[in-house]
Amino acid sequence: MDLAFEPARGSDAPIFRQLADRLEALVRADRLAPGAKLPATRELAAALGLGRNTVTRAYERLIVGGLFTARVGQGTFVVAPPTRSARAPQGARPSSARGFVWAGLFARRTRALAVPPALRDDAGGRFDFRGGQVDGASLPGRDLAWAFGRACARASRLRELAAHRDPFGWPPLRREIARHLVSRGIACAPEDVAVVSGAQQAIDLAARVLVDPGDVVAVEQPGYFGATLAFAACQAHLVGIGVYAEGLRTAALARVLRSRRVKLLYVTPATQSPTGAVLAEARRRELLALADEHQMPILEDDYDAELRYAGPALPALKTRDQAGQIIYVGTFSKILFPALRLGYVVAPRPLLEKMVLARWLADFGTGVVEQEALATLLRTRGLERHLKRLRRLYAERRDAMLIALRAAMPAGTAWSEPRGGQAVWVTLPPGADAARIYDAARARGVAYTRGEAFFVDGRGAAHLMLAFTPLDADAIAEGVAELGRIVRRHVRVRSTAGRRTAARAERRRTAHRTGGDHVTTKRR
Amino acid sequence: MDLAFEPARGSDAPIFRQLADRLEALVRADRLAPGAKLPATRELAAALGLGRNTVTRAYERLIVGGLFTARVGQGTFVVAPPTRSARAPQGARPSSARGFVWAGLFARRTRALAVPPALRDDAGGRFDFRGGQVDGASLPGRDLAWAFGRACARASRLRELAAHRDPFGWPPLRREIARHLVSRGIACAPEDVAVVSGAQQAIDLAARVLVDPGDVVAVEQPGYFGATLAFAACQAHLVGIGVYAEGLRTAALARVLRSRRVKLLYVTPATQSPTGAVLAEARRRELLALADEHQMPILEDDYDAELRYAGPALPALKTRDQAGQIIYVGTFSKILFPALRLGYVVAPRPLLEKMVLARWLADFGTGVVEQEALATLLRTRGLERHLKRLRRLYAERRDAMLIALRAAMPAGTAWSEPRGGQAVWVTLPPGADAARIYDAARARGVAYTRGEAFFVDGRGAAHLMLAFTPLDADAIAEGVAELGRIVRRHVRVRSTAGRRTAARAERRRTAHRTGGDHVTTKRR
Repeated sequence: MDLAFEPARGSDAPIFRQLADRLEALVRADRLAPGAKLPATRELAAALGLGRNTVTRAYERLIVGGLFTARVGQGTFVVAPPTRSARAPQGARPSSARGFVWAGLFARRTRALAVPPALRDDAGGRFDFRGGQVDGASLPGRDLAWAFGRACARASRLRELAAHRDPFGWPPLRREIARHLVSRGIACAPEDVAVVSGAQQAIDLAARVLVDPGDVVAVEQPGYFGATLAFAACQAHLVGIGVYAEGLRTAALARVLRSRRVKLLYVTPATQSPTGAVLAEARRRELLALADEHQMPILEDDYDAELRYAGPALPALKTRDQAGQIIYVGTFSKILFPALRLGYVVAPRPLLEKMVLARWLADFGTGVVEQEALATLLRTRGLERHLKRLRRLYAERRDAMLIALRAAMPAGTAWSEPRGGQAVWVTLPPGADAARIYDAARARGVAYTRGEAFFVDGRGAAHLMLAFTPLDADAIAEGVAELGRIVRRHVRVRSTAGRRTAARAERRRTAHRTGGDHVTTKRR
Repeated sequence: MDLAFEPARGSDAPIFRQLADRLEALVRADRLAPGAKLPATRELAAALGLGRNTVTRAYERLIVGGLFTARVGQGTFVVAPPTRSARAPQGARPSSARGFVWAGLFARRTRALAVPPALRDDAGGRFDFRGGQVDGASLPGRDLAWAFGRACARASRLRELAAHRDPFGWPPLRREIARHLVSRGIACAPEDVAVVSGAQQAIDLAARVLVDPGDVVAVEQPGYFGATLAFAACQAHLVGIGVYAEGLRTAALARVLRSRRVKLLYVTPATQSPTGAVLAEARRRELLALADEHQMPILEDDYDAELRYAGPALPALKTRDQAGQIIYVGTFSKILFPALRLGYVVAPRPLLEKMVLARWLADFGTGVVEQEALATLLRTRGLERHLKRLRRLYAERRDAMLIALRAAMPAGTAWSEPRGGQAVWVTLPPGADAARIYDAARARGVAYTRGEAFFVDGRGAAHLMLAFTPLDADAIAEGVAELGRIVRRHVRVRSTAGRRTAARAERRRTAHRTGGDHVTTKRR
């Protein structure tokens, strides 16, 4: 195999990615034919003078992209036409047929598309602390059934729903959303609001409308993976900006802005996802000044604006959007349930029009029955009543989790004490074996979201996110106690002095490499 | 202004687009500053030795993209920071603020994004024959209210809905869809089905997963604009393949395939949109052979599969998908109502997984309440009963429209007699002034979809689409009679001989330039 590869050391792209690109180019040029066996990683690493890990990561990238395949005990191969599926129902799929090779047809953006390993495990458990969940038992079922049924029951309203085709969304819902936002200090009229199928769609549309391949998008690190993945799918160049107790490190952002054009900044100022940090007032001022100076748009994801348990909420950044450079995103998924898929975006008109147009071509709009049902719930204050109950319930559960963590976790563990939101961000003690803890926890029915999911560079294993919303206080106490026992079993025993040094080293490393750190933490 | 522009005559891109790209490059390189006035089209055309129309189209392209702006009576300018909006509510938008310039930040794909003029007019009228509409009065309101209410009423089911997070869709609905498709000869299991927010989302996802900028996508011409626009938004190079009485001209497709790699073919074999042609058996065989030979994926949009009024339906192409190269798309929007936003896609697993992953990042999934409601309607056969009534109703309306056209239209008018679907495709008589007919019709409350909407190259003005589904038989008769009077008023009177010659010339021109022609027509 002719593989004259010389990494461009000055390049922004990591070497494994350069190598992957080179291998892909060989396949596309037919110089690596389907079915060809690749050298073992060890061999290729030696031949090219690279680390074996670099070659492994390059191979993995191409396996994920569908260009290579790994056969157990045989090695890695260029993808050959797939063999027939074992399942071949009655006559419609003759077994003589030749298979169609899809992998070679994927667009560039598709080849890199993959679910990160930290998000792949989708099984719950007795104690399911994974993020993005609600307690179904807490939902206002009677109000929901009434609102949904009512939408279709009256013939005149049903005719209006059937004729609806405004890609900005169902006008009665846009009116209710605008009214609600004005009460929170955001100056907007119904025309400034577009309904979307959840906050995720607003993020995706902002990415599609603004981001060309290679454009820099700045995200919080640790930060919300849904946003990161949507930006990555648009082939953005992601830059993680660290998060501390006061939220986004604006000084780090300023350093990035001195040398690079940032096409978009994604932030969660009210309740940073996942650390729960509230962006401090001074930081907000600095952030807005930077955005103004560098003409950088801000995507403000106010996903948990309604869920506060302690202290007054700061007004959204959007309330100070003097120049019209903030895209404001909200959702009903967090206070009702995620699979409802209802959110909204408020943005300056030139951008909003493009987002709505892109959205029209993507799916023509959000289902109108749920829009009408939600408008009814807002108008009749059913949602407000639900939210009041929810705040009380979630505050209790947050407290139960903090108490359980104090009781269960070994010394050296740290966690956030969020004033809002749905989850606690935990940092394992130094010497903890995160992978074995995860496996052991799953085996005992304890599920959580792994820290790596919130980092753009694969780090974060020392962290985990525990949602306190889906389980009641007893289950929280029991599940966290179980997790505590598991963590204790998988921490290497060291002297107290050694432990302190390790903890310091860990903190230094994290701070140095990304500025990533959790906030409002508790250390014992 | 230094504008040394020399069109690359051998290039695929039309000259106006090359010129637009050149002008854009100058703006991006700051050699045309915001606020700068551009030369008049006449002057620039003379200076560059180009047609004035070429310069006009280049300017229009950049105006649509937001890079230029045209001020009435002043000329065309490079976009300057927008002035403040007139509306500035209470204190939150200080009038001193400087405006944020979004236009310069749009991604390349966004700049070209615009609603085609033929689709811009969104006002209905007394006689609203525009496509994509249903008769709201025909909907099974009681069944819908029951199914939607029931989804949320039972606490156990509501808990399941709240916990739903499978991006492939709500399993009970996927089971019902698979069962239904198997009954129509399509071999599939629930795992092969993904629920999407309407057929449009399936088309968009196929484009996102498969199409790189510049890739060739072949579409029917005339053809469904929703698909064309979604492909264009992915910067596909669109090639229109003509449609005749037997459907897609496979010979024309074969010619294209001899010289170009086609990344995707979009077809509507059951009821061609908009002509209503049924793809003939021989053509189906030719198409499948071509797809096999050239390893070309087919996107089969079976949007109106359920709406047949005469003759047996041919089985879907998907029933013969031996190699697994057909992406099959269906929808419930046509038999219930468009704003429901519920469709599905059946595709070979390697592709389906990528589509679902792209979809997960786009919006995390379709709202689950409507998925559960629809699964209930399918399981309890409520949808089947509705469909039976709908077929009878729409067959009557189709007949009413054909009778009305015969009575009302002047000699030389031609139209389809579709055996299924929702609309009739009308070709105006030679000498008809399409623009004036459209304006006059709108003034008299008659709305329809203009033919240009279905052509990728701006032609099609001689055609119009009349949906017979939204209005009852009396309204159809009245509206078509009104339209007939208007058409008669706007046909240039010629001698019979002249008329014949003109008709022949029109047919020849259409056939020569695109192979685009209507089908199953009636000529008097």
